[in-house]
Amino acid sequence: MKPLKLGMVGGGQGAFIGAVHRIAARLDGQWQLVAGALSSDPQRAEASAQELGLDRNYADFRQMAQAEAARDDGIDAVAIVTPNHVHADPAIAFLEAGIHVICDKPLAATAEDAARIKAAAEALPTHFILTHNYTGYPMIRQAREMVQAGELGKLRLVQVEYAQDWLTEPTAPDNKQADWRTDPARSGAGAIGDIGTHAFNLAHFVTGEVPSHLAADLSSMVPGRLVDDNAHILLRYASGARGMLWASQVAVGNENGLRLRIYGDRGGLEWSQEHPNHLYVSGFGRPTQIVTRGSSAMTSLDAQRASRVPSGHPEGYLECFATLYNEAADLIRGKHDAGRLSPGLRDGLLGVSFVSGALSSAKGNGKWVRVKLY
Amino acid sequence: MKPLKLGMVGGGQGAFIGAVHRIAARLDGQWQLVAGALSSDPQRAEASAQELGLDRNYADFRQMAQAEAARDDGIDAVAIVTPNHVHADPAIAFLEAGIHVICDKPLAATAEDAARIKAAAEALPTHFILTHNYTGYPMIRQAREMVQAGELGKLRLVQVEYAQDWLTEPTAPDNKQADWRTDPARSGAGAIGDIGTHAFNLAHFVTGEVPSHLAADLSSMVPGRLVDDNAHILLRYASGARGMLWASQVAVGNENGLRLRIYGDRGGLEWSQEHPNHLYVSGFGRPTQIVTRGSSAMTSLDAQRASRVPSGHPEGYLECFATLYNEAADLIRGKHDAGRLSPGLRDGLLGVSFVSGALSSAKGNGKWVRVKLY
Amino acid sequence: MKPLKLGMVGGGQGAFIGAVHRIAARLDGQWQLVAGALSSDPQRAEASAQELGLDRNYADFRQMAQAEAARDDGIDAVAIVTPNHVHADPAIAFLEAGIHVICDKPLAATAEDAARIKAAAEALPTHFILTHNYTGYPMIRQAREMVQAGELGKLRLVQVEYAQDWLTEPTAPDNKQADWRTDPARSGAGAIGDIGTHAFNLAHFVTGEVPSHLAADLSSMVPGRLVDDNAHILLRYASGARGMLWASQVAVGNENGLRLRIYGDRGGLEWSQEHPNHLYVSGFGRPTQIVTRGSSAMTSLDAQRASRVPSGHPEGYLECFATLYNEAADLIRGKHDAGRLSPGLRDGLLGVSFVSGALSSAKGNGKWVRVKLY
Amino acid sequence: MKPLKLGMVGGGQGAFIGAVHRIAARLDGQWQLVAGALSSDPQRAEASAQELGLDRNYADFRQMAQAEAARDDGIDAVAIVTPNHVHADPAIAFLEAGIHVICDKPLAATAEDAARIKAAAEALPTHFILTHNYTGYPMIRQAREMVQAGELGKLRLVQVEYAQDWLTEPTAPDNKQADWRTDPARSGAGAIGDIGTHAFNLAHFVTGEVPSHLAADLSSMVPGRLVDDNAHILLRYASGARGMLWASQVAVGNENGLRLRIYGDRGGLEWSQEHPNHLYVSGFGRPTQIVTRGSSAMTSLDAQRASRVPSGHPEGYLECFATLYNEAADLIRGKHDAGRLSPGLRDGLLGVSFVSGALSSAKGNGKWVRVKLY
Repeated sequence: MKPLKLGMVGGGQGAFIGAVHRIAARLDGQWQLVAGALSSDPQRAEASAQELGLDRNYADFRQMAQAEAARDDGIDAVAIVTPNHVHADPAIAFLEAGIHVICDKPLAATAEDAARIKAAAEALPTHFILTHNYTGYPMIRQAREMVQAGELGKLRLVQVEYAQDWLTEPTAPDNKQADWRTDPARSGAGAIGDIGTHAFNLAHFVTGEVPSHLAADLSSMVPGRLVDDNAHILLRYASGARGMLWASQVAVGNENGLRLRIYGDRGGLEWSQEHPNHLYVSGFGRPTQIVTRGSSAMTSLDAQRASRVPSGHPEGYLECFATLYNEAADLIRGKHDAGRLSPGLRDGLLGVSFVSGALSSAKGNGKWVRVKLY
Repeated sequence: MKPLKLGMVGGGQGAFIGAVHRIAARLDGQWQLVAGALSSDPQRAEASAQELGLDRNYADFRQMAQAEAARDDGIDAVAIVTPNHVHADPAIAFLEAGIHVICDKPLAATAEDAARIKAAAEALPTHFILTHNYTGYPMIRQAREMVQAGELGKLRLVQVEYAQDWLTEPTAPDNKQADWRTDPARSGAGAIGDIGTHAFNLAHFVTGEVPSHLAADLSSMVPGRLVDDNAHILLRYASGARGMLWASQVAVGNENGLRLRIYGDRGGLEWSQEHPNHLYVSGFGRPTQIVTRGSSAMTSLDAQRASRVPSGHPEGYLECFATLYNEAADLIRGKHDAGRLSPGLRDGLLGVSFVSGALSSAKGNGKWVRVKLY
Repeated sequence: MKPLKLGMVGGGQGAFIGAVHRIAARLDGQWQLVAGALSSDPQRAEASAQELGLDRNYADFRQMAQAEAARDDGIDAVAIVTPNHVHADPAIAFLEAGIHVICDKPLAATAEDAARIKAAAEALPTHFILTHNYTGYPMIRQAREMVQAGELGKLRLVQVEYAQDWLTEPTAPDNKQADWRTDPARSGAGAIGDIGTHAFNLAHFVTGEVPSHLAADLSSMVPGRLVDDNAHILLRYASGARGMLWASQVAVGNENGLRLRIYGDRGGLEWSQEHPNHLYVSGFGRPTQIVTRGSSAMTSLDAQRASRVPSGHPEGYLECFATLYNEAADLIRGKHDAGRLSPGLRDGLLGVSFVSGALSSAKGNGKWVRVKLY
Repeated sequence: MKPLKLGMVGGGQGAFIGAVHRIAARLDGQWQLVAGALSSDPQRAEASAQELGLDRNYADFRQMAQAEAARDDGIDAVAIVTPNHVHADPAIAFLEAGIHVICDKPLAATAEDAARIKAAAEALPTHFILTHNYTGYPMIRQAREMVQAGELGKLRLVQVEYAQDWLTEPTAPDNKQADWRTDPARSGAGAIGDIGTHAFNLAHFVTGEVPSHLAADLSSMVPGRLVDDNAHILLRYASGARGMLWASQVAVGNENGLRLRIYGDRGGLEWSQEHPNHLYVSGFGRPTQIVTRGSSAMTSLDAQRASRVPSGHPEGYLECFATLYNEAADLIRGKHDAGRLSPGLRDGLLGVSFVSGALSSAKGNGKWVRVKLY
């Protein structure tokens, strides 16, 4: 099968997540990067395109959307890997140009931007995919299937955390990654937006439930920081379940500590992103089992489809990201049942609800606020 | 040196914690159990005393306090290992009889009982020790010394949890351990009292700080249960630090998962009760180190004194408990600097504050409430 | 029940294992230390006895054996905790005096000494127990029962290792522990005797099989060292099973790394002494299970009897050692079925066979030699 | 930069390692698969080529070598992913056609085939790369640099093992992977060839040393199996170091347990393939450090070059494999310093020496045999 054609907005030299998207798109051979508006700085855009061997280098994403839409061999989809406050404009431009959008998370820096994307995406037939990449891990899919099939019984507890330490100290002005993430105008929020949304989304993906209410205590531990770098959040579900969500970028010793624990009235499970090939599953009164990726105990077809090599050969972050690109390709190609698991607009809107709710609760001294559902 | 003489109130046949106290008292040879009022049921008291080879069996703790105080070879201290609502009366009786008290935690089932113990203990020269046993772990002492010496920098975050699963299902009426723990009249509270107080105390022991405020979401997950079996609690410290405390008795797959993580602006540490001989210590930007009990990296003298065998030979729960008994003996014997680390009245009162605060916050829908300090 | 009376030979100030025996004897309340010949140095013996509060201090073990045998309240058993070359004489003296012997491992420094103990022990009704303490761990008993009940199928592989690092460098002359252990005249051998025998015994205890042949490559990695500090040994069993045994005292980063892995044609298991409360059990094609001490999956009655506190409260080295003392007490008291699991003379003789075989194979450049069975 | 053009021999439908090579080649964008002789069965070759979208499908590798050599846009290199006994003929054909060869390990099924490849590769300017892929792990490169820089001191011990369980039972006749691997004519040997060579190579890569002698005990645990499925091997190095190598395909509960432990007279390290992003490093008398991929403690430039994403985002098996393809591309492109770490002919010959030596030792009842060096 011929690879689909991919364009990219953002992701020029010095960026982090753009390179990840490129590897993810390439890994399973379903995508070929052919065009880009890789930077808002024309020189950097040009240099970045040359480095990547891209012939079709655009100085501007609007121009790119129009030009690519007009070509016979135009791109099938665009990857938007810009800072949060530059998601809405390119997303809308490509959606309107009839080009599918694969957008980095979170959906947007503001509720207004989110609403604009929503309006465009709902009005148009083009697909919108949001790269909540951790949903691509096979053992997360295994967990999802087990939880939603009731293997843990009635859901009681969701303990999710995403702990990092890279923002422990004030960041240098030339730290491109930290720069926009700690600027409220460009990021919308701090740890809750950057990683809290991942934790929130992962819990939702696995349990199928969204908390109806939350109460948040947000902190900026680093003096002078303008956004939260630590978030302590309590969750309540309409079903009676309860949860805790911790997101931190100042927890020294944690690199990318996304951990999920789910408990029902008959069982529990644990998973950690840094050791993603293992899922710990406990039935009440029975020994904990270590279910491994690729083994016969990985019974979920969704997990099997997201798995490439036999058990014991670790798959990691790039593979889980690549799975989202594969499923986007399947969706665009119109395969039967495709895109069922792809995070998209609704996940993005829930993420914005989560961030808005957390900011609102924090302003109200941690009062319980309703999470707007979609 | 001759062992001290110990009496025991509670701990008869079918009890759990009494047997633990007996092993702990015996382990290092500083105590000899010689008397007991082991059960409120005279037959069980008698049978229990015989099984233990105790000549001095009392049917009643008040009679025991008076009789032992009158003997030349009377007990030096009494261990009170009754359910929570039967702490105050025996504690006061022995304190008033001039006999030192080693009391199981939490201090009391009600604030009224706590106040009565406080009044007696403060008015009398006899010692009152509360067995928050986890403070006896060497690596907890190492952590305490490192945190309080500023090795992690300014305290930012306290993440503490105590997860169990033994109350996942409704308990059988003949489950003696579960019976009183799930009866509000006898326990005062559920998970927050039974294990939440341990978590709270441990964080306090290590950091030296007490949160000024807390906000609690308490649940009774098991239908019909009258006390909380899951507690989600946010903490705020006057210093600006923040914390999360989770206590659960319905988290399937967790046996006795007491875990502490502390983060400052320069370092972090992690410790887990189920693997107590290892302390994970991280300096920002440096690799995490595994500091082991008994190794030369265990620099704390308090840790060294609480350690019996060389590194690599695991010490556990009974040893940490025994350390409290040793230090109680040193205190009673008037050794220089003794009892400095022994948890006592103030810890017990703080625990009661914690429970009262959590219950009060939960009644107020998770509002922030002040933690009464002592 | 009244405690039994214990004497001790060796274990004076500066010794390591004597203190461990004393704690182990005390822990469960079945023993009381009342007499000792704690050092061959009379001053140290006296000072050690005073420190321990022992009235009956003997300058000489022969005198002690006679005097204790003559007393109405004489000791029931003696613990021999001297260096290896001083096991035989006291063991024989006490056995002949009608006093039961609890002897530290290995049995002896030489085959001659072992034969002398054998002759005495077999001729006399007194019990001889050898403290291969690791057999006391509950999860080792669980493993034993599972393996011997055929739950792993036909035995195929035994991978056992005991890695330490404390002899990585030449030892200082005043290092009492290292001193005799690195002197061939007093120890008989190096790592193979001191820890290799533990590994060998543990594999035997769990599998019930003894290798018929071994091939050994022994090294003295530290320049000038007169005994082996690293042993690489291959094992062959008459049943067709094969094994590897590694014992090292120069493996930097290993504290007391005794690890056992057993594989049959249907299952496998893993256990590590540094985390002794967990046993990893795998059936072919099924997920690995974590069987924990004290949980309902610990089905072995032998394990249950060796377990004191509920699951999740770690028990360790001192507890496993104490279990041997309990079972010695039961044996001496003539309890039904007592001593069934107690390591004794035959284990000691097999250990000596193992050491002799390894030395003989090493002299023959690693040729296969037969292990003398008993 | 334009991708290089890759051809493939073997790797048609039903094969395992061919798909891995394709992902690895694609992952970093340096290679494009354009031609193949994917199966010796013409129908399967054709179907496989169609499935992969390959226009240039050859029925025969000799025809492919000639045709591709003749094209202006012919392949730059060929990946040979056939069973072991079909390595030599295609390798020689492509080397002679002036096309670089990337060959799966081990080098060959027989010493004769190995000698033929050697003769061709040494006589010709074309490159020969052998995919001992585990050398591509960043933490293995970090380990290599630390060991070879003397950070562990003088090398003493090499403990390496590769344990699997997938051949625990007799294999079904239609198990394509097991079929040729258990046929001596096609594989040359069993576990020693398939995974033992990986373990041997990894130890060599990290230490820079090759054992001068080995002694092997090989077993076929499964009744009727014609090749070894378990290998117990002792190693001696000319430097005085000693080692143990265990390779097994019948160790139930092990999926792909390649583990390396190296000890010197000043330090030690441990690494496990199933958790490849962590390296445990111990200096004598200091706490073990957890050095993580992507962190600032990963000081090796070779490791940094082999690393794609920040620490805490796990990289795995496919990434380490891809690194070999990147370095092959750099070598072919003539980049400065390229190919320095690429495993090649000499590694393959050493692997064949290892297998021959092990078979020879086993035939001689485990006698020490010299390992032929290159």
